[in-house]
This record gives sequence, C-alpha cells and structure tokens, in this order.
Amino acid sequence: MPLLTSWIDSANAPDCPFPLNNLPCGVFSVDGSEARCGVAIGDMILDVTRLEEDGVIAPAEHPVFDVPYWNDFMDLGPDAWAAFRNNLIAMLGDGADADTRARIEPALVPMAEAVLEMPMVVSEYTDFYAGKNHAFNVGTMFRGAENALPPNWLHIPIGYNGRASSVVVSGTDVRRPWGQLKGPDDDAPRFAPSARFDIELEMGAIVGQPSDGPVTVDEADAMIFGYVLLNDWSARDIQAWEYQPLGPFQAKATATTISPWIVTRAALEPFRCDTPAREKELLPHLRDTGPMLYDIDLRVTMAPQGKPATQIVQTNYNVMYYSAAQQLAHHTTSGCAMNVGDLLGSGTISGPTKDSRGSLLELSWGGKEPMTLESGDTRSFIEDGDTLTLHGACHGDGYTIGFGACTGTLLPALKDPYAR
Amino acid sequence: MPLLTSWIDSANAPDCPFPLNNLPCGVFSVDGSEARCGVAIGDMILDVTRLEEDGVIAPAEHPVFDVPYWNDFMDLGPDAWAAFRNNLIAMLGDGADADTRARIEPALVPMAEAVLEMPMVVSEYTDFYAGKNHAFNVGTMFRGAENALPPNWLHIPIGYNGRASSVVVSGTDVRRPWGQLKGPDDDAPRFAPSARFDIELEMGAIVGQPSDGPVTVDEADAMIFGYVLLNDWSARDIQAWEYQPLGPFQAKATATTISPWIVTRAALEPFRCDTPAREKELLPHLRDTGPMLYDIDLRVTMAPQGKPATQIVQTNYNVMYYSAAQQLAHHTTSGCAMNVGDLLGSGTISGPTKDSRGSLLELSWGGKEPMTLESGDTRSFIEDGDTLTLHGACHGDGYTIGFGACTGTLLPALKDPYAR
Repeated sequence: MPLLTSWIDSANAPDCPFPLNNLPCGVFSVDGSEARCGVAIGDMILDVTRLEEDGVIAPAEHPVFDVPYWNDFMDLGPDAWAAFRNNLIAMLGDGADADTRARIEPALVPMAEAVLEMPMVVSEYTDFYAGKNHAFNVGTMFRGAENALPPNWLHIPIGYNGRASSVVVSGTDVRRPWGQLKGPDDDAPRFAPSARFDIELEMGAIVGQPSDGPVTVDEADAMIFGYVLLNDWSARDIQAWEYQPLGPFQAKATATTISPWIVTRAALEPFRCDTPAREKELLPHLRDTGPMLYDIDLRVTMAPQGKPATQIVQTNYNVMYYSAAQQLAHHTTSGCAMNVGDLLGSGTISGPTKDSRGSLLELSWGGKEPMTLESGDTRSFIEDGDTLTLHGACHGDGYTIGFGACTGTLLPALKDPYAR
Repeated sequence: MPLLTSWIDSANAPDCPFPLNNLPCGVFSVDGSEARCGVAIGDMILDVTRLEEDGVIAPAEHPVFDVPYWNDFMDLGPDAWAAFRNNLIAMLGDGADADTRARIEPALVPMAEAVLEMPMVVSEYTDFYAGKNHAFNVGTMFRGAENALPPNWLHIPIGYNGRASSVVVSGTDVRRPWGQLKGPDDDAPRFAPSARFDIELEMGAIVGQPSDGPVTVDEADAMIFGYVLLNDWSARDIQAWEYQPLGPFQAKATATTISPWIVTRAALEPFRCDTPAREKELLPHLRDTGPMLYDIDLRVTMAPQGKPATQIVQTNYNVMYYSAAQQLAHHTTSGCAMNVGDLLGSGTISGPTKDSRGSLLELSWGGKEPMTLESGDTRSFIEDGDTLTLHGACHGDGYTIGFGACTGTLLPALKDPYAR
C-alpha cells in the first residue's frame, strides 16, 4: 500500500510517523483543559470528541467520545472501527471538498501544544514471555544454560497476570522501588532500594472486544484493536528473590509504561509477517493460521541526566515466537473472560545478536559486561536520572507508521518509604 | 462483646449468622428487578439503596447506593464506614423508637425472596500463599519434601496477580476447563478437559481505600473494608505443566467464587487474634503490630449431584502465617498502587491435621488417598455435578457472625470448546 495523501501537508512527509495511513488513537489535553479523545495526523491532533459534539461524526447512536478513553469506542466492535477509519481517511484525504475541510479544521490541535494522556482504561494487564532469545538468555542467567528454556516453552505462550494499576503513559516519571533483596551469599534478606532496575522492550496488544469462553487464534486476532510500545520496568534483584515458586510480583509492579498512541490493527495490516519456524509442532488450537506478527523496527535509547541519548538496542517485533493472537487464544483456554481494555504484553523482544537484546539484564549479562554510552558513562542497570525511551516504526512504501515515544525517567528511591 | 439485640427478632437467635453485630454488605435483586445494595439483618435484607433514595440515610453528600456495588461507599473512607454502622445499629437496635421503625420497615426485604449478586466491582485480584501447612503440603507434592518450603517463604508473603474477570459470586456454576496437560511420563502435551479440578479454601480481604506508595502494616489494616469467603478453583493438571517459571495462569483463571456478604472489619473486631510464632524474625516493615488475624471457623462440604453433602474440611483462619494486613503492606512495597475494590486471597487455609487441609490436592494427597463421602462415593478431585460449599462463622458471646455460603457446582466440560 502506498502513502495515502492528506490535505494536512505535514502528514505526507515520508518520515512523518502519523500519515493518513496510520490514524492512531490517543487522549490529550491542552493547557490543563479536560482530556479528550484525539487521532494523530501529521503534526496535528484531530479532536474527535469535538467532532462528535459538533455532529460531524457519530460512530454510534450514543456518544462514545464524551469520556477521556477509547474503551467505549472499542466496545462498538470491528464494523464500527472500520467505518470510523474509512470516514477519517475520506475527510482527511486530499480528495476532501472545501466544506468537509471547513468542518474539520476547527477540530485540529497542534500536537506541540498538547499533553498526551493514557489512551484507555486498562481493565487487566497480562504479560507474556514469548521471545525465545530473551527466554533463553534470562533462563541461562537465572537457572543455568541446561535449564534455560522451560519444558513447556515451545508448547504454550507462557504468561502471568500483571498489575493494571501500574500501567502509566509515556512521560510519567518512575520512582526507583524498595524491595526485599537477598544476594546468593547473603545470610538473610534486607529491605533496600533496588540496585538492578531494568527495562523490558515489549509491544502491548489492546483487546477491543470481550470474550467469555475459549476463542480460536483467528477469533483472537479479530478481538485485538491495536498495539502500543510497552516498557515493563523490572527490578531484577527483587525478582530473583521473590519469583519462585509463583512468579514475579513486586519486581514488576512499580510501573509499566506504554506509548500514548494506539496504532490500530488496520494500520498495521500491510506489515503482517509470519512467526519463525516451529521447533515443535503446536497443538491445533494454538497453531498459526496466517501471518500474525508485524514487521516493526524497534529501538531503545538511554540518556543519563543532562546528557545526550545513546541507542542501546535495535531489534524487530518479527523475532517473537508467539503472536499476540496466539497469546490471547491461550489466555482464554480455561474459560477466562476477556474484557475491552485488557492489555497483553508481548514479552521482551530480543533478537539473536547482542545489540538486539531488549533488556539491560541481557545487554550487560547480569552486570558482568557493562555498556559504555556515547557520553562516556558506563551502565549495567539504570542509574537515577537516566531516561529510557522505546521507539517503534513500520516502514511502508513512501511512508512510516510511528507509535510515538515510550519514555520514562528514573527518579531516586525515597529515602524512607514510610516517612509521613 | 455481647449480642446487640434488634427489634427484628430473627436477628437475635444465637445461631443466626446475621445479628445486629454483623451487618454485612451485599447486593441483591428481587424478581429480576434492578440490583440494589443491602445489609443482612436476621432473615431480612435492609435495602439501603431505598433508604438513601427516601432520605432516611445519607452516607455522603452525593448518592453512593445508586449503583449495584459497594465501591462508592467504600471510597468514602473509615469515618463514613463507622458512622454508617453506628447509624444502622441505632436504627435496628431494640431501643429504636416507633418513628424510626416505621421509616425502616418498608425497606426490609425477606432474604428468601432475594437473589444475591456480586457485592462489589473487583478492581484487581491478588492471591497469596500464606498458609504454611498448605505451602508445605503442596511444595512436597510438586517439588519433594526437601524443597517444599521455598527459601523466601518465611520472609515475605508470597503472592501472584490473579484474574479479576474470573471472580464470581456464590451460586454461579463453574464449567470444567480445558487446558494443556502433560503427565510426567507423557511424550508430549495434549489439549483436554482438566481431570484434576480442585478447590482452595481461602478468605478474601477487600481493599476499601486506595494507596499510591508503600504503606505500613497498620496503614494496610486500616485500608481493609471487610472479608469474604473465597474459593480459588484450581486445575491441578494445568497448573503442574504451566506454572514454571512464571507462576499459575490458566489453572486459576476459570473461576474464583466469593461469598455474597462482605463482613466488615468492624464486625470482626472482637475476633482478632495473633499470627503464629515467627520461625524467622520478619524485617521491620512486615512485622506484626498487634493481632491482625481473626478467629473464624471454616468448613467445606461436598455434595455429589442429587446426594447429601459431606463435611470434608474443618479448620480456622487463625492458622495462617501472614495476615491480610501484612500481605497488603508487602503488596505496596514497590510503589504498586492499590485501589478500592482490590481483592486479596489469603492463600489456602490448611490446618496441621489431615481433616483440616483446605484443598482436595492435600486431602487426597495428589489422588493417592481418595476420600470416601457419606454417600458412599469416593473422590480424589471434583467430579461433574459436585457442589462444593465453603462455610465460615465467628462464635461470639451469645451470637454468631456468618458470611453466607460460598458455593458452586461443577458443570461438565464443553464437548468442543471451539464449536460455534
């Protein structure tokens, strides 16, 4: 698919992250005003809450954009999603007539003036472990190379429930957590700030339709509204002590940052690609039924406080072993009900090479091989004041599909978490 | 504290689960009408939604009972909780004057005519593993006696995030799940209905106030609004194959049943008791600051379809190693935000004797020692059509604090979960 050209010129540049082909969904405010739903187009945000108020659009018989989140719109289902997208493409495309442009123009807000907020209410958050290089690397460090890949790993997309209350939008500062820590040679655990605070480079899939029983992989794919970048901040020292036998808990509960724009499945359609070859045949209910991963270039940059950023990771979502559709299908096998606004983390996306590893734990091999940044600083894990940013882009025929940055700065730990 | 007598006579019987001392909070409907908030008193439900509509009570300046859940009321905080309770005790106590009784009487609904519904919206659900006998028994079966109790167990209340969408109210049928299963001697996993479906006898603590950073054990205790009985249905065969390395997932996602009445912390106050002696001193932020467990007698009964019930478990909540306050304090150490309506499962409550074990896995020792029921049937795990019921009661000075039954019947697995 080529670039769809818009009468909003800034959307037509080949490197603009928000061309007419994209139309991602977000929530924004200007000058502290009430948050509203918007769609990114070029360097502008289209205020769809205003368009609905003005009667220019009506996705449903009842208002769906009178709330500062996209859940009510997602609830309408795939036919409404497609109609809305097609309508915007017509109204913002360069074939739109002067009348249409006149009705749209008052609802365009310069993105530079807007603050981006959480695009949806997160119903529940599930995180998976579906990158094979990551699973092998981390498994080697936590359990040794012989037991690196658990016996179930090639048969089910391993997942665990995360904490929805921890999900924040890009730009939110993250406070270094305290936790219970015990090194392998310590006699007893102690309560202290995490000294091994890390990122995890992931994609997040957003469930846009509910289910109340097992769904097939195809049905699961159709339930997904869109994708965001996701950084699953992780305290490795808390994790190492707590995670057996029931999985990570407080190590993952400080924050999970998502990018502000939900890039719809429709926008990603031209970038579908296959999962890698299966090393063991999957059981029928989890088998691929078509290309359900996406070719999304991913990068991570790290900037010490007041210093320039260094790119520390470059990889692609297409290295994952399981697609979000397979993960969602597995999620429902037990009859587990899924709801609009559920967020599924892909698991850390690590490629096969060292510079494509999606966590500092892997990049510094548990702290044994510190990285040197362009600023001259060395890093094994995140230091106070560091800013970590995830970037993602699909490269189309003369256009780019961007997600907006997924960024956060680490604040120092509280001196006394119980001081009041 | 002695029995508080009420002018509703049925509330004054020593074995009535809902005396004036209790006043638990639920949601009910009659003849398919819209669900309303109610408080149990004797054999009646006091329709507090109607009382608020009629202006007889006004817990806040805005309505809080115009919704079929107690979250808005919980949100008001401890002072409002105490004022509401004191007001009801005055209005329902036998010292109430004729005018008061006349205003109350139209809002009394016979419990026998009501259907009980979910008392609150579950924001998120966390399940703990805080019963030492259970942890030791299950650990022995899953990992051998030498590795039964994980090294961290005596230092932190181990917990994992559950699935809020799986929580249902007592009386809801539960469908036997399908899942991926692999026995230790199988070459490969298969997808089939769970053959080892189980209960877990737990208490659920309901968070009634939010937090946005680490809280102390005392602060955590004050955040808890009340308690329910909780059955964390568990597919042991799905669990055995999936739970390493990131914990239980689909094994616990089919359903979690709670009793319909939230028994408030205020009603349980006279039954506070200490946690057991510490085998290892806890770190300061998790230490007991007073008696924070409760003396609650617990029983489980099992009834094959169409046959009488047999009591299969008798134990007490006072055997737990960690209190809900300690669990909640631990839950917040990383800065994890807690919200009104969060539900914390205590972990399976097993006493030291065989008949006090809170799961069939333990009672039948992994299926090796089937139980014989009074009906003559034998059971290792749950069979289709079986009804499992949790019962709980505090025994006071001439009165009983009940929770209402926490019951569910197992329906057979779907023949083909993907038939449409």
